[in-house]
Amino acid sequence: MELWFSEPHTPDVKLSIRVDKQLYSGESDLQRIDVFESPELGRFLVLDGYVMLTEKDEFIYHEMIVHVPMAVHPCVKRVLVIGAGDGGVVRELTRYPEIEYIDLVEIDQQVIQVCRDYLPRTACKLDDERVYIHYEDGLKFVRTREDEYDLIIVDSTDPFGPGEGLFTKEFYGNCYKALREDGIMVNQHESPFYEADATACMRAHKRIVESFPISRVYQAHIPTYPSGHWLFGFASKRYHPVRDLDAARWDERGLETKYYTTRLHMGAFCLPAYVEKLLRKVEIR
Amino acid sequence: MELWFSEPHTPDVKLSIRVDKQLYSGESDLQRIDVFESPELGRFLVLDGYVMLTEKDEFIYHEMIVHVPMAVHPCVKRVLVIGAGDGGVVRELTRYPEIEYIDLVEIDQQVIQVCRDYLPRTACKLDDERVYIHYEDGLKFVRTREDEYDLIIVDSTDPFGPGEGLFTKEFYGNCYKALREDGIMVNQHESPFYEADATACMRAHKRIVESFPISRVYQAHIPTYPSGHWLFGFASKRYHPVRDLDAARWDERGLETKYYTTRLHMGAFCLPAYVEKLLRKVEIR
Repeated sequence: MELWFSEPHTPDVKLSIRVDKQLYSGESDLQRIDVFESPELGRFLVLDGYVMLTEKDEFIYHEMIVHVPMAVHPCVKRVLVIGAGDGGVVRELTRYPEIEYIDLVEIDQQVIQVCRDYLPRTACKLDDERVYIHYEDGLKFVRTREDEYDLIIVDSTDPFGPGEGLFTKEFYGNCYKALREDGIMVNQHESPFYEADATACMRAHKRIVESFPISRVYQAHIPTYPSGHWLFGFASKRYHPVRDLDAARWDERGLETKYYTTRLHMGAFCLPAYVEKLLRKVEIR
Repeated sequence: MELWFSEPHTPDVKLSIRVDKQLYSGESDLQRIDVFESPELGRFLVLDGYVMLTEKDEFIYHEMIVHVPMAVHPCVKRVLVIGAGDGGVVRELTRYPEIEYIDLVEIDQQVIQVCRDYLPRTACKLDDERVYIHYEDGLKFVRTREDEYDLIIVDSTDPFGPGEGLFTKEFYGNCYKALREDGIMVNQHESPFYEADATACMRAHKRIVESFPISRVYQAHIPTYPSGHWLFGFASKRYHPVRDLDAARWDERGLETKYYTTRLHMGAFCLPAYVEKLLRKVEIR
C-alpha cells in the first residue's frame, strides 16, 4: 500500500512523506490534529495540515530556539513559553538547573494530550516540577504580566489560524513589558524563501524592531519546513546576541547537543545577502 | 490541468513542483535531459529525474561554489571547471577580470546545448572569450594536467551515473596534481541529512582529506536540493578558507550578490554539531 502525506509549501510546491500508519486524528475546538508514523522521519505531528515537528529533525528547531538565548543571557531564572505544546522547548529548557520556573502557555489542551500520548520524545519533560502549564491564549496571558521573565520563547504556529495573534505589535509590546530589564524574547520567524513566508517574516520583523531596542534574526537548516531555510528572531532589551555570547561559559556546561554549538551560534547570525536586504527594508523607522 | 514533477529525496520523501509546460525532453548517450517551466521556481533542469537547478534558487549554489574560493585565493588566473554544463559557474567566474582562462570540461555536449537553448540566464557567459569548452570526461581530462590551475571547481552531479568518477580518490589526487602550489579545489559535497546523502558526503570527505593538507566543509541553504541543506568541500594546498579570507579586498570589488557576502562566508564554515561529528569520523587517518 502507498500512503503519502503531502504539505503544500506554496500552491505550486509540495513535500510528501510516506506514511506507515496514522496514529491519531482528531479535532479540537481550534484545529485538526494528526500524528503519523513514517519510515523516513519517524513520528510527525500535523496541525491543520501543516507539519509542526518530525522526530528526525525536531532537535534542530528546539535546540536553536532555546540554546541561542540561554548562551547569551547570564542567568535565566524565569521563563515564559508560548505555544510549544509538543514539549520540545521545555525539554531543552529543563537541562538548565538555574531555571526556577517555566510558564508554558498553550491554547489547545488537546495538543498537549496528543503529544503526551504519541510523542514522548518531545513531551518527556512536561511533568518537570518547574513547569506550570496554562491552557490559555498566549496573547491574553502575557497582557497580565509585568517585569517578570528573563526569557520569553514564542513557539507559535504560522501567522494564520490560532497563532495569528502571536504576530501582532500588541503582542510583542506586551512581551516587552512582561520581560525584566535585561530580558530576551526569541520567536520562530518564518522563512525568507517563498514569497508568502517572506512577507510574514518581514511583517513580524518590522513589529519586533518597533518594540525592542535590539532585534536580530538568525537561521537554521530545518529540512521538513518549507524551503528548509528557517529564521528565528532574537529581540532583547540589553544583550546583543553575538557580542554578549559567553561561549566559554556555555561550553563549560558540557551539554550534549546535535545541532547547536557556540561556534554555530556565531555563524547562524550571518545571513544571506537577500535575507539581509528583506530585513533592512523594514528596519528603517 | 494538474501537472506535477516529483523527485524522490529518499524512497520515502519527495518534493513535487507544479509544471506549466515541459519545454524539452531528450536522451543523450549518457542521460535523460528535461527542462520544465514552473510557476513557483521558473524554469528547471532535470537530469535522469534529479533537479540540477531551478531559476529561482540557482544563484545560491553558483555564488557559493565560486565566490568562497575567489575571496580566499589572492590571484586566480587559470580555472578548471568540471561538469557545470549549465554555465552557472562560468557566469559567476567571468565577473572576475583577473581570470585569464577557464577550461570547462563537460562530458555531455547535449547538456550544454539544451542549457544554451532553454536556460539563457545561466548559460549566458558560455561564449565569453576566456571560456574553452572541452567535451570530455573530467576524470580523463584532469589526468593530463599538471601544475596548471589556481582553482578547480567540481560541479558534479550526484555520485552515481555519469558523475560517479568525480568522487574517487584517483580523481581528487589528479586534481591535486593539476593545481599549482597554492591551488584550491572546491566541490559540491552532497547533504548531511538523509542517510544515503550523508554516506556519500562522508566518503567524498575522506578521500579529499587523504589528498589535500587543508580540507574544510561549508554549507548553504538550497531549497530545491534534498533537505535544503547542502555542503561544499574546500580543499587547498596552502590557503585556509577562513583565516585567509581577505574580506576587505573582496568587498572592494563591489560585486553585487544575492546570497554570498564575506560575513556569510565566515558563517558558512560553522557547521551543526551532527555534521561536524559525521566529518570527524572520516578525518582520522
